[in-house]
Amino acid sequence: MIELETRRLGDHEILHAFPAGKGEQPLPVVVFYHGFTSSKLVYSYFSVALAQAGFRVVMPDAPDHGARFTGNEQARLGQFWHILHASLTEFAGLRAALYQAGLVADDRLAVAGASMGGMTALGIMTHHPEVKSVACLMGSGYFTSLSQTLFPPQESTGIEALLADWEVTRALPHLADRPLLLWHGEADDVVPAAETFRLQQALQREGLDGNLTCLWEAGVRHRITPTALEATVAFFRQHL
Amino acid sequence: MIELETRRLGDHEILHAFPAGKGEQPLPVVVFYHGFTSSKLVYSYFSVALAQAGFRVVMPDAPDHGARFTGNEQARLGQFWHILHASLTEFAGLRAALYQAGLVADDRLAVAGASMGGMTALGIMTHHPEVKSVACLMGSGYFTSLSQTLFPPQESTGIEALLADWEVTRALPHLADRPLLLWHGEADDVVPAAETFRLQQALQREGLDGNLTCLWEAGVRHRITPTALEATVAFFRQHL
Repeated sequence: MIELETRRLGDHEILHAFPAGKGEQPLPVVVFYHGFTSSKLVYSYFSVALAQAGFRVVMPDAPDHGARFTGNEQARLGQFWHILHASLTEFAGLRAALYQAGLVADDRLAVAGASMGGMTALGIMTHHPEVKSVACLMGSGYFTSLSQTLFPPQESTGIEALLADWEVTRALPHLADRPLLLWHGEADDVVPAAETFRLQQALQREGLDGNLTCLWEAGVRHRITPTALEATVAFFRQHL
Repeated sequence: MIELETRRLGDHEILHAFPAGKGEQPLPVVVFYHGFTSSKLVYSYFSVALAQAGFRVVMPDAPDHGARFTGNEQARLGQFWHILHASLTEFAGLRAALYQAGLVADDRLAVAGASMGGMTALGIMTHHPEVKSVACLMGSGYFTSLSQTLFPPQESTGIEALLADWEVTRALPHLADRPLLLWHGEADDVVPAAETFRLQQALQREGLDGNLTCLWEAGVRHRITPTALEATVAFFRQHL
């Protein structure tokens, strides 16, 4: 049995799931980030699965998503990379609020996400050595190159320069020193599986793949399968 | 606050969600069916959203899915229509188990589902006048024609004859006498949105669309959006 609530934590509303009766006591925590144009509620099945495995799960809405959505879908479509960057910078505040509320057991704090949320998780890994393990599903850590083809930003915004600081290109050692799970459907038609392959190859080339788990699923497009969900739960059971 | 558990009901394991503290008392119930190659766990966000709105939600696994999966993905891909048919025939037992457990308030029982689960919901509507309202997301009720292009069965199995009895073609009055929600992404690349348009047109042509709500979402492929989830919750708030 698990419990799940929508509550305020830090500056924003979160979805909060945990084993029944353990709402206030310290637990190992997974912060999970949803995908673009989706919401914490639509991705709440990760909360269900991870809370059933004993974890506290905290799911924020990305800026202009879910409870924070302004309602202008067209404008939001042009803001993919700004939204990603804002999510990256918001993590520190969310983590502080988690600690202030006494919800984290023994610094056991992990980050995960899917699609844009997977990119968020990888970016956080480059900046936050205190995060114990990370799972990135159908995401990418190569923000500046991917932004040339996926929701390309307007040229004048300078967002690429901001994102360059968070991407994996120059941060491989920070991705190698803790357990990292990468999952990707091989037929992904939104975020190409080549993004994950590129990161796997880069880590292997430097001999930095000792903590890396890479899972591929043949014939799967841009969606989360039961296998991907199970693999995420199994990964955190082992590494958090 | 909601609670969610995995438990046995009738012959199978279900996912069971409800407002906190109301696990045993009668409530309005939504039975929700997941999509093909997915699972009750991956679709559990519908449980979260509907339980937060005050409903009891019961999600079975389809045959050979989730807790019932035998592990042979290749064999399962050839069984789409057999699995749909088995889910249709299993509903009566699940409903009986719900009543026997005293979980349904005032016969307020509804059925919903997405993709193959939406087809399941529509098929159940043709046979079960006691179901109060139905929501079908990115599904179809035209089983025998769709089976010619979507996961076509082997010719010799005779499954089409079994499915013909459950499809909407000759059952339009049974789809018209209670509230029905149809939602479809217009760019659906798995179950064509034309399937839902065909049903909408058929009901309108016969003047049978008085209880029908049709929602379309432009540019959306085969996935559930926050809007679709919200619309489902709003529909049952109004019609269950």
